[in-house]
Parts: sequence; structure tokens; C-alpha cells
Amino acid sequence: MKASRRSEVDPFIVMDVMEAARAAEAAGRHIIHMEVGQPGTPAPEGARRAVMDAMEAGPLGYTVALGLPELRARIARLYAEWYGVDLDPARVVVTAGSSGAFLLAFTALFDSGDRVGLGDPGYPSYRQILSALGFTPVGIQTRAENRYQPVPGDLPEGLAGLMLASPGNPTGTMLGHDEMAALVAATQERGISLISDEIYHGLHYGARGVSALEITDEVYVINSFSKYFSMTGWRVGWMVVPEDHVRRVERIAQNLFICPPHASQIAALAALDCSDELEANRAVYAKNRALMLEGLPKAGFDRIAPPDGAFYVYADVSHLTDDSRAFAAEILDRAGVAVTPGLDFDPVRGHGSLRFSYARAAADIEEGLVRLARFMAARG
Amino acid sequence: MKASRRSEVDPFIVMDVMEAARAAEAAGRHIIHMEVGQPGTPAPEGARRAVMDAMEAGPLGYTVALGLPELRARIARLYAEWYGVDLDPARVVVTAGSSGAFLLAFTALFDSGDRVGLGDPGYPSYRQILSALGFTPVGIQTRAENRYQPVPGDLPEGLAGLMLASPGNPTGTMLGHDEMAALVAATQERGISLISDEIYHGLHYGARGVSALEITDEVYVINSFSKYFSMTGWRVGWMVVPEDHVRRVERIAQNLFICPPHASQIAALAALDCSDELEANRAVYAKNRALMLEGLPKAGFDRIAPPDGAFYVYADVSHLTDDSRAFAAEILDRAGVAVTPGLDFDPVRGHGSLRFSYARAAADIEEGLVRLARFMAARG
Repeated sequence: MKASRRSEVDPFIVMDVMEAARAAEAAGRHIIHMEVGQPGTPAPEGARRAVMDAMEAGPLGYTVALGLPELRARIARLYAEWYGVDLDPARVVVTAGSSGAFLLAFTALFDSGDRVGLGDPGYPSYRQILSALGFTPVGIQTRAENRYQPVPGDLPEGLAGLMLASPGNPTGTMLGHDEMAALVAATQERGISLISDEIYHGLHYGARGVSALEITDEVYVINSFSKYFSMTGWRVGWMVVPEDHVRRVERIAQNLFICPPHASQIAALAALDCSDELEANRAVYAKNRALMLEGLPKAGFDRIAPPDGAFYVYADVSHLTDDSRAFAAEILDRAGVAVTPGLDFDPVRGHGSLRFSYARAAADIEEGLVRLARFMAARG
Repeated sequence: MKASRRSEVDPFIVMDVMEAARAAEAAGRHIIHMEVGQPGTPAPEGARRAVMDAMEAGPLGYTVALGLPELRARIARLYAEWYGVDLDPARVVVTAGSSGAFLLAFTALFDSGDRVGLGDPGYPSYRQILSALGFTPVGIQTRAENRYQPVPGDLPEGLAGLMLASPGNPTGTMLGHDEMAALVAATQERGISLISDEIYHGLHYGARGVSALEITDEVYVINSFSKYFSMTGWRVGWMVVPEDHVRRVERIAQNLFICPPHASQIAALAALDCSDELEANRAVYAKNRALMLEGLPKAGFDRIAPPDGAFYVYADVSHLTDDSRAFAAEILDRAGVAVTPGLDFDPVRGHGSLRFSYARAAADIEEGLVRLARFMAARG
């Protein structure tokens, strides 16, 4: 059978790292996982209990396409709690993870061939999803002095859309209120549809993340229960859209997804009231981050982006290698630490960078840093 | 913000029926639901127990994109059990419902503007998903004498793909082995990519459904845990693809979905071994179907497609109305029975047809038929 051109998607290089790590473990080696992009913690206990209760209570059939009304209302309340923003629950769309939200947002906003800007380095799937849907991703090389976030002057001509991510993946850097406001103004002036990926909100270690909704209602904001709420495998997230886009997004969602997973919606609703457990998780990340910020420079990884949020440190290693893929393989082989080559995030400069995740237990982070230091010392 | 042209999706008319039914119930009326397209039964008990055990055992993080290996292997074994087909588990892709499978299949096979044929009447979302992805759906008016399924002579020129559904929704009619083989041959001769929607397999009341995989490996076959396995809200299904498409589909799935819901995959694996409960459900549908085939003609709905499978009866009511939407509203208002107007399924002839679902409890079906007979008698 003939395959489509739009499905010619680049493989994730991190998958090779993960497979090599798995093979090493199968061969009896102990590997520290600094390549993973997910918490090691389960969904909060209250969330799991809610699912058990719901399974006892009756069939978990389809929900309405936009999600359980009580979940939409509770998410709207989160905007008051976190940002002081008064949000109409009618604008909240529950989605099958942020993945489902990207599909809905891109479909609602763009037509075949439309150019959509995204900052490099960035989450690789933005680019691939846009291509798979028939749009044209346009990479924007961000600069270290701008915390690897785009600024208005970086935006090329002819964009139909702009994708922002704060905190970003792989960098963990955040846009402050003024930076976000400048980008909102620039996109509105030029008629560029703005999508703000806020899936790492809640995971900050200084000032909290700024939501684009604090600045404008004319934006698609995407969030997720995967990271702060520790529910990756449940595939549930949400999106806030302008009031006059709700009906359109609802119809696409009915057709593309029917509904988000019902059990996951019930878990998500309960998770929103599990602050104690979630804040305890965050305290572990904060500790891990402090360990990383001390240990990585000591080991020789001292050119790092300011990791304001999420659970990543992005390091410039261009003085150590011009092949981050080979370098990551060497680190796995010789240090027993799995890390992600930057090429997944930045096709242009990623050959000279690595992403270190600190999403796992603090003891693992400590051991990993010892191994990295030993490896770098031996390397000379 | 500017919205896209491709997101200009028709609303489902059945949603208006459901909303009217909800409003009637809120006002204290008792409504019989013959509009619903899902079982009233929960996921099998074994499936729910497996989820509880898994939630106790550890975090339900991301799975690999193609799904849990043991689930893929168990699905492959189902093809031996149901069809005597020897299927390589590597060709099985676990998906976020059949919805996720449609997105993957269409993206893997088609490029912007490609024409994809689909039989009318048919599942309305095929058309809408294709449009939302930038493809061109081409409706094929099927004929009653062909059991409302397309035949090779019906295929228009210039198709890149053809979507089949057996048993079909809304008709419940099935393609026999020879009819399926003729369509496989015709599409292969003309280089048309074939997608076979088999989500109602398992729900047959005479001969079992024929899988396209019994005839060819050069096909995308889509199935689901929603219907026979009674797991609509869990959003888990699967797809079988040609061997040389697996890597491509894997990469799209990694980017578009990351993975299907983990808990749902665990439930699905257990559901595959819950035959007793599932066959008991099927016995209820068989009883309901017999009630419908006796009661609907008696009530005056005697022009019906042969309902080989699924849980629907599609009735030609063009001698009773030329506005199925108004007729459905009248039936809801006067008989207290919610039914689906054919316009959702067939934009050309659907003004003269209705879909009756018999997915709920037998007592509801009996009561619904009494009400329909009374309504029709009063209508004269």
C-alpha cells in the first residue's frame, strides 16, 4: 500500500537511547534514567480511589465531547486559584492529554500549508504533528540571552500561528509576564493565532508560571494532568479556547475523539484536590533540581539554561562534542546514565546539547551525578 | 482569532435529539433511549478488577506507543480464535479507541486533497475526520439490494482510499466473504488503499463477520473494545496494518498520541478473557433484535435493512415523512422514544430514514416498541 508523504515523520532519537538502556538493563547493568520525561510517582491516591469508586458505581460510558461538566468547572476554578483569573467553565475543553489538545487546536486554527512558528529547542512532536496534519512547521532559533524563548523580533513573516511553551521542554525556561505580553501583542498585531503550551505549570521553583490567559482571552491555552498531577499514562489534559471557538472545537472533538477517557476524567477531577501529595512531589523535584544545579557544573556541564520550571536541565555541550547522539551513547555506555541528545529538540544546534531529566527519586539523581562526575573526570 | 476552513464541521443532529431527551427527562418525563450507540453494560468485571490491581501495583505511566506487548500478542491471538487467521503481533497497533485508529490510518495513507470513498449511509465521523485532516470525503450512495454496502461498480474514479464498515452503522448489514473479496480485488487493481472498519465484530446474530484480513494483508483493519467488549468510555481499540507500515504508524502514534490510555489497555487485556460475560451481553442483544424485528414492522416500520450485526435497525421511512429530523422530534415528543434521524448518516437520502438502537436492556426495548406502535396507530 502506498503511504502518504505527510506521514514521513522523523524518529525520536531518545527512543534509541531508551532501547539501549533497556538492553543494558536486560544484560544486568544498573542504569540511572535521566532521559525520561515523566514522573516516577503514580496518580495521586485520591485520584485512584475515585476511579475505583466510579468503577463500582456503574458503567463508564462515553461522556459528552467537551468533558464532564464538573471537571470543566473545577478546572476553571484552578485558574482563579493559580492565577487569579476568572474563567468561564464553558471555555474549558477536556482533552485526551495535551496530545489531543494539539490535534484539536491545530485543526481548529489552520488550513493545509499554513505556516506555524515554534521555538527551537522545543518539544519535537509540535513539528511532527503539524506536518502530519498537512501544515508547515517553521523553526525559530531562540537565543540563550532570551532564555531560549522566542521574542517578537524573532518571528518570521507569513506565520498563521505561533506555538509557545513556558516552562519549555527541554529547557525548563519560563516567559515572564512582560515577555509573554510582548509576544501576545506582536501576534495580535500581525493576525497570528497564538497557542500557549502550559503543561508544566505547577512545577516551578521560584516565581510561578504566567498563563497567557492572564494577558488575553484571544489565545488557545493547553495544559495537562500528566506532569504536576503525575498522570501521564491516563492521557487527560485540557484546553481553554476563546468563547467564539467553543462550538467549533466541540464539533471537531465529537468527531475526532468522541470523548476523553472517562475513568481518566474522574481521576483528574479528584487529583485537583490532592494538593498535599502533589506538593510533596514538587518538593522532591525542587531537591533534585538543587542537586542538579550543584552537581552538573561540578561534573563539567556548566553551560546550562536557567531551569525555572518543569524537571529538565538543558546543557550546551558543544565544547565537548559535535555529536550529541554519540555523546549520549558514550555516557550511557561508560557512565550508566541515560540522557537525551539535543537533536530531538533542535535540528540545527542540537548536535551540541543534552537534556537531563530530574523527574525521578532523589537517590537516583544523587547516584547519577556521581556517575556523571566520574565519567567526565575519566574523559579528561 | 481566525478559525480554519477545515474545521467547519457539521453538527450531529442526534445531539439535538439527546438534548431534547435530556430536557424531557429533566421535566419529569420517562424516555426510552433508542438513539444511543453504546452498550448499557459496564466493562467486564474481570477488566475492572485488572485495573484495580494495576493501580495498586504501581504508577500507570506512558506505555510504548504501539501499546502493551502482551495486549498486542493477545489481540493477534483473537484473530486465530475468531477467524483462523495467523497474525503477527508486530502488526497490531493499540489505539485510543477506533477514533485514534482513524486518525492514524488516514494520516499514514493520505495527503492533502486525496479523495476517500465511503458508503452512504455510514458513520458520520468518517466524513468529518477526513475533512478536518484536509482530505476529501467522497460519499458513495449504496443500494438496498446490496445491503447498503458498496460494490465494485459503485466506486468512482480517482479514489486514493476506500473506507468499508461491516457490520455497518447505521444499517447493521454485513459484507460476506465474496463481497469483501470483490472489493479487495477492485481496490487493489486500482491502487486504492483499503480501510476496513470492523468495530462491531463479535456482535453478529447469524454468520460471523468476515475480516478483510481473511482475504488480504494489504489492508488497514480497525477494531475497538467499545462495542462487543462493552468499554466505550475507556477509549481503547486497535488497528492491524501491513508489515511494511508498522514503523511509519509507530512514529505517527508516538507524536500524535504518545500512547493509548494505560489503564484502558490493562482493562482491554483482561476483557479479552471475559467471554462468558460478553456472550451474555450478546444474548441480550440477540433477544432485543428479535423483539425489534417483530415489533417494528408491526408498528409500521417495515422497510428495514437486514440487521446482520451491531445493535441497530435502519428503517426507510420515506413513505411516512420527508423530514426525518422533524419525525424524530415528533416521536420523542409524542411517544417518549428517542431515535436518530438518518440525516446524520446519509446527507442525500437520510431525510427519509431513521436509526433505532437496541443496545439497552430488553425491558426498555419492549416498552419502546409498545410506545412506537401506539404512536403510529394514533398517527394513522
